[in-house]
Amino acid sequence: MLLNQIHQPEDLKGLTVEQLEQVAAETRKFLIEKLSATGGHLAPNLGVVELTIALHYLFDSPKDKFIFDVGHQSYVHKILTGRKDKFDTLRKYKGLCGFVKRSESEHDVWEAGHSSTSLSAAMGMAVARDLNGESNRVITIIGDGALTGGMALEALNHIGHEKRKLMVILNDNEMSIAPNVGALHNYLGRIRSDRHYVKAKEEFEHLIKKIPAIGGTLAKTAERLKDSFKYLVVPGVWFEELGFTYLGPVDGHNLPLLLEALKQADKVNGPVLVHVITLKGKGYSPAEADSHKWHGITPYKIESGQVLKSVGPPMYTEVFGETLIELARQDKRIVAITPAMPGGSGLLEFAKLFPDRMYDVGIAEQHAATFSAGLASLGLKPVFAVYSTFLQRAYDQVVHDICRANLNVVFAIDRAGFVGPDGETHQGVYDIAYLRSIPNMVLMMPKDENELRHMMKTAIDYDDGPIAVRYPRVNGLGVSTDEPVSPIPIGTWEVLRQGKDAAILAVGPMIPLALEAAEQLAKEGIQVRVVNARFIKPMDEAVLMQLAKEDIPVVTLEEGAQMGGFGSGVLEYYSLNNIYGMRIKLIGVPDYFVEHGSVKEQRQEVGLTAERLITELQSLVPRKKQRA
Amino acid sequence: MLLNQIHQPEDLKGLTVEQLEQVAAETRKFLIEKLSATGGHLAPNLGVVELTIALHYLFDSPKDKFIFDVGHQSYVHKILTGRKDKFDTLRKYKGLCGFVKRSESEHDVWEAGHSSTSLSAAMGMAVARDLNGESNRVITIIGDGALTGGMALEALNHIGHEKRKLMVILNDNEMSIAPNVGALHNYLGRIRSDRHYVKAKEEFEHLIKKIPAIGGTLAKTAERLKDSFKYLVVPGVWFEELGFTYLGPVDGHNLPLLLEALKQADKVNGPVLVHVITLKGKGYSPAEADSHKWHGITPYKIESGQVLKSVGPPMYTEVFGETLIELARQDKRIVAITPAMPGGSGLLEFAKLFPDRMYDVGIAEQHAATFSAGLASLGLKPVFAVYSTFLQRAYDQVVHDICRANLNVVFAIDRAGFVGPDGETHQGVYDIAYLRSIPNMVLMMPKDENELRHMMKTAIDYDDGPIAVRYPRVNGLGVSTDEPVSPIPIGTWEVLRQGKDAAILAVGPMIPLALEAAEQLAKEGIQVRVVNARFIKPMDEAVLMQLAKEDIPVVTLEEGAQMGGFGSGVLEYYSLNNIYGMRIKLIGVPDYFVEHGSVKEQRQEVGLTAERLITELQSLVPRKKQRA
Repeated sequence: MLLNQIHQPEDLKGLTVEQLEQVAAETRKFLIEKLSATGGHLAPNLGVVELTIALHYLFDSPKDKFIFDVGHQSYVHKILTGRKDKFDTLRKYKGLCGFVKRSESEHDVWEAGHSSTSLSAAMGMAVARDLNGESNRVITIIGDGALTGGMALEALNHIGHEKRKLMVILNDNEMSIAPNVGALHNYLGRIRSDRHYVKAKEEFEHLIKKIPAIGGTLAKTAERLKDSFKYLVVPGVWFEELGFTYLGPVDGHNLPLLLEALKQADKVNGPVLVHVITLKGKGYSPAEADSHKWHGITPYKIESGQVLKSVGPPMYTEVFGETLIELARQDKRIVAITPAMPGGSGLLEFAKLFPDRMYDVGIAEQHAATFSAGLASLGLKPVFAVYSTFLQRAYDQVVHDICRANLNVVFAIDRAGFVGPDGETHQGVYDIAYLRSIPNMVLMMPKDENELRHMMKTAIDYDDGPIAVRYPRVNGLGVSTDEPVSPIPIGTWEVLRQGKDAAILAVGPMIPLALEAAEQLAKEGIQVRVVNARFIKPMDEAVLMQLAKEDIPVVTLEEGAQMGGFGSGVLEYYSLNNIYGMRIKLIGVPDYFVEHGSVKEQRQEVGLTAERLITELQSLVPRKKQRA
Repeated sequence: MLLNQIHQPEDLKGLTVEQLEQVAAETRKFLIEKLSATGGHLAPNLGVVELTIALHYLFDSPKDKFIFDVGHQSYVHKILTGRKDKFDTLRKYKGLCGFVKRSESEHDVWEAGHSSTSLSAAMGMAVARDLNGESNRVITIIGDGALTGGMALEALNHIGHEKRKLMVILNDNEMSIAPNVGALHNYLGRIRSDRHYVKAKEEFEHLIKKIPAIGGTLAKTAERLKDSFKYLVVPGVWFEELGFTYLGPVDGHNLPLLLEALKQADKVNGPVLVHVITLKGKGYSPAEADSHKWHGITPYKIESGQVLKSVGPPMYTEVFGETLIELARQDKRIVAITPAMPGGSGLLEFAKLFPDRMYDVGIAEQHAATFSAGLASLGLKPVFAVYSTFLQRAYDQVVHDICRANLNVVFAIDRAGFVGPDGETHQGVYDIAYLRSIPNMVLMMPKDENELRHMMKTAIDYDDGPIAVRYPRVNGLGVSTDEPVSPIPIGTWEVLRQGKDAAILAVGPMIPLALEAAEQLAKEGIQVRVVNARFIKPMDEAVLMQLAKEDIPVVTLEEGAQMGGFGSGVLEYYSLNNIYGMRIKLIGVPDYFVEHGSVKEQRQEVGLTAERLITELQSLVPRKKQRA
């Protein structure tokens, strides 16, 4: 196998184009095999095999900087830069990261996980290169979906203005995670398929060629016209107007054409955009047929493409989707908004049933939030479904446009807490801290999938401002549902287990750990109260005052940053109410970024376990009580 | 005066164009007079006098929704909707708000303060209109500077895709707060001045007209070309490609032309963009001559245009600018980045001295942050100068691109704390909460302008990750500076006054209040320790442990949200270190949005005063100590 001889980009340089094509074929086979066992971002990587080979063949990483937007399409890059043998550990605890990772290789120069950051990073690297008097290339690889993220557009505007040498490779696969939306997408579609532009260009040249024969004024007019039009009659006028030289579209699976286009682009002494058309899932028919499903995939059978699904109770995401349909049938004000995650957010069925009440705005969290505010300002009930980590992009809009104006926007925050194999860029552990400090915000988390349903009803019925429900990326507990859904009184907690020696205030999926610890401690004679702190804000003051009255030790337990989190809220409550002297221990996610692995491993690493709880409670409860 | 008869938009409807022009002239005179006493956003409002009159004359607010981006250009709108008599209270405590304010009038349908939100809001209102089966107009007025904010570009992409009826008025004054930058700005400039487009269109039509005489194939080709080109040979092709009908450019001070253009735009059954050229400061020569200075202005003499400046020590902003120059002379790695605020951030002189190390990226906070990360990734030392409230826009980039990657980006966070007359949209009271919970972040605030200088040196010398210094929008204390600037050990506090009965841990401009309270209490025999908590993160553990050892009551004092703020950090520290029983009282900004007024009034309103401190400390310190 030729691929086995490639340990670094240098090893590609001497190969013929035919040999490069062989490397491409072998890389595809390798990816399809390896990912069938580990899972991972198969389709995006199958789409950039030739492109990545071409880049490493023509240019000189790490001197030249390759910046992969998002970074989940960097597997081929990892294979070509010496990490082929680690693919068995892909996305596993302490294993190969699913994104670009600087600590893995000198060829990894820019880390991400969230989309649309590569152009800004590239601009920074291009300016740094020029100020440092160096001459390396800066090359970004960005998908058509990521291109419409606001920060990428901000960067285009700046790059086009600065006119420094910088290459943007637009990896246009017509579909990022979900089918792309937006006017810019439509525009790219016209370039690709309409032939309008190309024809216009051909016909114009034909016309101009004949005109000199006419002579006189008309010929002169035509000459001038040729100048005027030349930058209009190209497919990429939208990019050209922003100061880019546009090249393309070029077939991203045709290595000779691709190499030629990249060579040509490299000659441009300024910003250049190479429009490369690729097919997501290229070379593996199940993935080609449904690149949406195969964007990120769990282990599968290679022959059939059958996905090996774990069985278990429904995910919280599914319960959210089903309940929203139920509620939307009764309440016509409900409108769903997603920033390019209709599938991941469980909204595919909703979209089918209520097409005019479903808005996929593309990768555009900021717009999505303020669009929701606009809907709410005229009496609708927008449900903004978003992952915790991506809501970070809309923080200002949440503060300035929604909470400050106190508009009735419902936030359905998925992937709250640890997210497992996507790792540190995707951990949903900051939203409690960044939402709790904003006035007017109500923030809930359910103990199980049934409570999620009631919380959604609570959110829809609440007409006093913004309200959010956060839920984790895990299966529900398999509890039965009680009908009908009914609202939970705002700011009330639920005592799940009585106890007089200590109390645990637990949030969401931490509750089973709390119950387990309480059961264990009961055997030692320590009676622990377990409270479902289902409202993170506002908190249940009656429960808190009762704890103060009894003066028992309290542990707060949350799968979120312990700085500024729910536990801090409990401490603040007592301080602001002049209640001192309580023994309150915070347990949450410590102050560092937790890397990829399973959710279980991540919890284990930071001490979100029943064992830890037991130890903490044992040391908090006075000895005499323990012996009593 | 005709203007005195205008109490609501209805009153404009019967007027002739000449009379409207008279109203315009009178409105200008009114604004120039009133703002000479109150200060305010003079230049932007003088630029939109005719435009606002035309909108209220032609359309039907509040049924039709007028959405002013940012909203500081809504004064004319306020005058025409019954608020003329309140202009003496403009931007004053409990007075007329300097932005659009829903509680003031039914004609105010969308509030802002931050830029670039109007298109998203408009899209929400257009969808709500359609779902509610109504037929009102939705019209946004957005400046060319605001248009390049990422969320506005995200919204353009969505609006163009959805194709609903919606009017965008691009108020192009070639200069927002600072001279605009960016490729899109250059593009608008070409439309305005180059005549390239207009000429091309004229010449093409001339050519096409003659071609039929030629006959045969050529004529047919020309016909087809006409179709192909028609959407290319217009000035607004960039917008047309995004799905908008483009109209303009039109002179925004010529009422007959403006009315005609708006009428034409109103006939478009889909998204339409009207490109209106206005002059900021129009009609008042000092403001026309320097629209940057006159964007937001303090009181001035009408005749001379002389601004009445208060005398006092330099603002923190100025000290920042001067110190950065000093440091940049010694350290070539320093690069300054601003999102459209070179003046407000004190960087004008720096820009002159180091033009190749100064990057104004336009209104693009997200890009600014990640661009900084890119610079840092190759060894430069970017200083991202930004207001606290606008840094909210880059929260995700701070988390994901800077702190997670632990890059050496320096944040210079201006306008931290209360900001006075700009009010609730601009209060810099959340940054402690949203930055403190991010791993790797170091956060400082100086007690005076001299300490700011040393903190900047600290930040520049720090090479272990991101570091931020926040400072308020007030004058310094007038202290002398000590040379040379030298770094402060990370995580160390400073005891400013000894005391054994209680301690105040105070942040930045709260320190004088703490010292005043301590002095007052000393007279009562209560000795209060005052600590300059100059590092908000990491905190000084030695000082904290000493307090625990002495077991004296502690008050934390900060001009920031008390939920998740510095005080919470102190509480967390003790909890995480298993230290219980301390009496710690948080004082900060309570959980609501504080409106406009002076900084002093805002502090008074929330109880950030020496009197409050004294009362709290009196109740915290045990009686026996008080009597001793």
